Amino acid sequence: MVEFKDKIQLLADSKDWKGLKQVLNDLDPIQIADLLEDISDNAEIIIFRLLNRNQAKEVFQLLSHDKQEQIIEDLANNVKTLSNLLNDLEPDDRTAFFEELPGKVTHRLMQLLSPEERTITTQLLGYPEDSVGRLMTPEYVAIKTNNTVEQAFKHIRKYGKDSETLNVIYVVDDEWKLIDDIRIKELILASPQQKIEDLIDRRFVSLHAMDDQETAIKSFQDYDRVALPVTNDENLLLGIVTFDDIMDVAEEESTEDFHKFGSIQSVITNPLKEKTFNLYKNRIIWLVVLVFMNIFSGAAISHFENVIQSMVSLVFFLPLLIGSAGNAGSQSATLMIRALAVGDVEVKDWYNLIWKELLVSFLLGITMAVAVSIVASFRAPEIIIVLFITMVLIVMTGCLIGLLLPFIFTRFKLDPATASAPLITSIADICGIVIYFSVASYFLNF
Amino acid sequence: MVEFKDKIQLLADSKDWKGLKQVLNDLDPIQIADLLEDISDNAEIIIFRLLNRNQAKEVFQLLSHDKQEQIIEDLANNVKTLSNLLNDLEPDDRTAFFEELPGKVTHRLMQLLSPEERTITTQLLGYPEDSVGRLMTPEYVAIKTNNTVEQAFKHIRKYGKDSETLNVIYVVDDEWKLIDDIRIKELILASPQQKIEDLIDRRFVSLHAMDDQETAIKSFQDYDRVALPVTNDENLLLGIVTFDDIMDVAEEESTEDFHKFGSIQSVITNPLKEKTFNLYKNRIIWLVVLVFMNIFSGAAISHFENVIQSMVSLVFFLPLLIGSAGNAGSQSATLMIRALAVGDVEVKDWYNLIWKELLVSFLLGITMAVAVSIVASFRAPEIIIVLFITMVLIVMTGCLIGLLLPFIFTRFKLDPATASAPLITSIADICGIVIYFSVASYFLNF
Repeated sequence: MVEFKDKIQLLADSKDWKGLKQVLNDLDPIQIADLLEDISDNAEIIIFRLLNRNQAKEVFQLLSHDKQEQIIEDLANNVKTLSNLLNDLEPDDRTAFFEELPGKVTHRLMQLLSPEERTITTQLLGYPEDSVGRLMTPEYVAIKTNNTVEQAFKHIRKYGKDSETLNVIYVVDDEWKLIDDIRIKELILASPQQKIEDLIDRRFVSLHAMDDQETAIKSFQDYDRVALPVTNDENLLLGIVTFDDIMDVAEEESTEDFHKFGSIQSVITNPLKEKTFNLYKNRIIWLVVLVFMNIFSGAAISHFENVIQSMVSLVFFLPLLIGSAGNAGSQSATLMIRALAVGDVEVKDWYNLIWKELLVSFLLGITMAVAVSIVASFRAPEIIIVLFITMVLIVMTGCLIGLLLPFIFTRFKLDPATASAPLITSIADICGIVIYFSVASYFLNF
Repeated sequence: MVEFKDKIQLLADSKDWKGLKQVLNDLDPIQIADLLEDISDNAEIIIFRLLNRNQAKEVFQLLSHDKQEQIIEDLANNVKTLSNLLNDLEPDDRTAFFEELPGKVTHRLMQLLSPEERTITTQLLGYPEDSVGRLMTPEYVAIKTNNTVEQAFKHIRKYGKDSETLNVIYVVDDEWKLIDDIRIKELILASPQQKIEDLIDRRFVSLHAMDDQETAIKSFQDYDRVALPVTNDENLLLGIVTFDDIMDVAEEESTEDFHKFGSIQSVITNPLKEKTFNLYKNRIIWLVVLVFMNIFSGAAISHFENVIQSMVSLVFFLPLLIGSAGNAGSQSATLMIRALAVGDVEVKDWYNLIWKELLVSFLLGITMAVAVSIVASFRAPEIIIVLFITMVLIVMTGCLIGLLLPFIFTRFKLDPATASAPLITSIADICGIVIYFSVASYFLNF
């Protein structure tokens, strides 16, 4: 892999355009895309211009959004190439590219589209962000029930060239309402004279254009389909969504959940390439919020100042105890966030989960209390009883916070992953301090 | 949805088998699977037995592993049905089911397979866990280069029935070495008399049977294919992997990373259905390990006992400071774990990332130091300078720990997500305590 990149950089440096074009001709779009992501900026645009029209389209769709934007900027003076490229893109990939651009730029680029492609794009961009409509492509093949299999294949050969996939063919009525979807396998294995009517069972799974993209992910996982049809309220077939777009969205959603749980505000795709300031911006807000929230932990401690002064050894165990509550709480939150995300658990289940969590957290608390007692027996045997009881109580409290917070966020239409590990830890800290010193004052008679 | 479930439960309770069979006949396999997951245990086996052979296979493949095991147990006395079911399963789904069973049970069930299916299963189970080989199915269609498109379709019609997919057809030479893969779209759009030879470009993406499943996920995402061929060292075509299995693996991997990051030992698929003891078992180990690790934080504090005794107000800010280090460190770990998982960052990049992280963490530290100074100005103005300097230092330390730990784990062939939020927090705690009280002793001249 490295070799051909060096070779290309060399050819670009020595301005051997002919040789360069020859090398590029033999490469896969994915290799060229990979190359463009790594090569120096001025070589990049030269290479892109040397690609043939089909290569240019294929390669462009494989690039990261930042790279795509740069290519478009580079092509600004070359209206013909730019217009060809934009018109050639698959409608769904074009929507994905446009929706990340500033409105002004989108508007300018839209002027370069043919009237037909512009209509499609305007329609697709009209659907809400994160809706199925945004992932859709209108490029599919539909047939009628009264056709024979042979006629269907004739139709497919005539209209299938631009279709994003021929793996699934859609059956519609005269009003273009969806009746069924047929896998190409069934059509190939059927006899040519069979009627489509006889092949279909009128049972199909479809998405609604206004559905959330998460619903689409779930449907693809449940039904193992390579493509799903998208309809409106009247069951009119508007377009299809293919599995590759769904895999991208699923990965993005997972990353988003993961980042939010680590209290990073919005998704940072590649920390290696992200600008330093963006990294700072997406991390600082929660950190500062948590600093101010921690005022309460300080206040709680100062409230117990005299307890601490009479027995400084209590402080030795403070990080251990509040840390344990936070750790156990993070675990509970982890389980709930992921279960809510993949749909194993719904908001209404919180009540059933609480009883189970109380039992589990009690067992965890007892075990950890034994562990802390062992530790304390060497260093502070006089407070073992305090430590034991505190550990059980704060682990249970931490777990309940970790369990409930994701549900509360979901209830208020926020992402459950907003219940980040740092947030759980901070809340558990405050509760832990109050519980610890209260138990201590009670047992040690301060 | 709820209605038909109630209806079925009613029919089962009134033992109306004929009516029940009729209702089941009209349902989708996914609806039946959904039903079996929810319905009472004794109704479950009755329903399963009422399904026709094809339904039984389809439904079984959609069930959760626990449910599958239960069905198999229920069918133990009905060797014929059990044997039919096991033989009908797609080889890749059968492997997935068998690999989760105790060896003894697998062995017993293997006896029920036909010699042919048993050979396939033994081969597939021979590949290492988490390897591509385990996801593979040998049910695909391959054609030769000297065929015409028309001949190819004849061949596909003859042998395609059992193929898991006809979306992609594979081209092999006489030794069954892989030459290319062709999407069915290309075959359909080609003219019948064209030679396969002229349609192929001999450029293909393939997986190796011993590849890690994560490599397979990456390939599917990069190349947007619905299926990929699997070969051995000699480039012999062994089988194919389809996107639906990859989506399942990708979801599992994401869940695993998420759970590990929350310090849960192994994946808990659905906390609502998981046994209480399993929940306890998968959570307790790390929690206890962390309790013992926290001995060091206690030791660090006791080392500074006289500093604390002379100025108890230092303790007020302890949770805030060590919490901040842990929070910032968790963020860094989150970014790295996910970037390593999706392949944006590789182990060799650690050096480049450190300089960026030092700058980002310095900016974060300064901002948070300003925040803590504001808080302190009301409560303890005399230690603002200590708090300011400590905050910058511990945030930077926390971030470096969070950044490096995932790389260190990866380097030692462990999952980077082993660097869980609780682990980072605990290590940051210890460092934070030492830094805080050292800075305090220095500035306050203890």
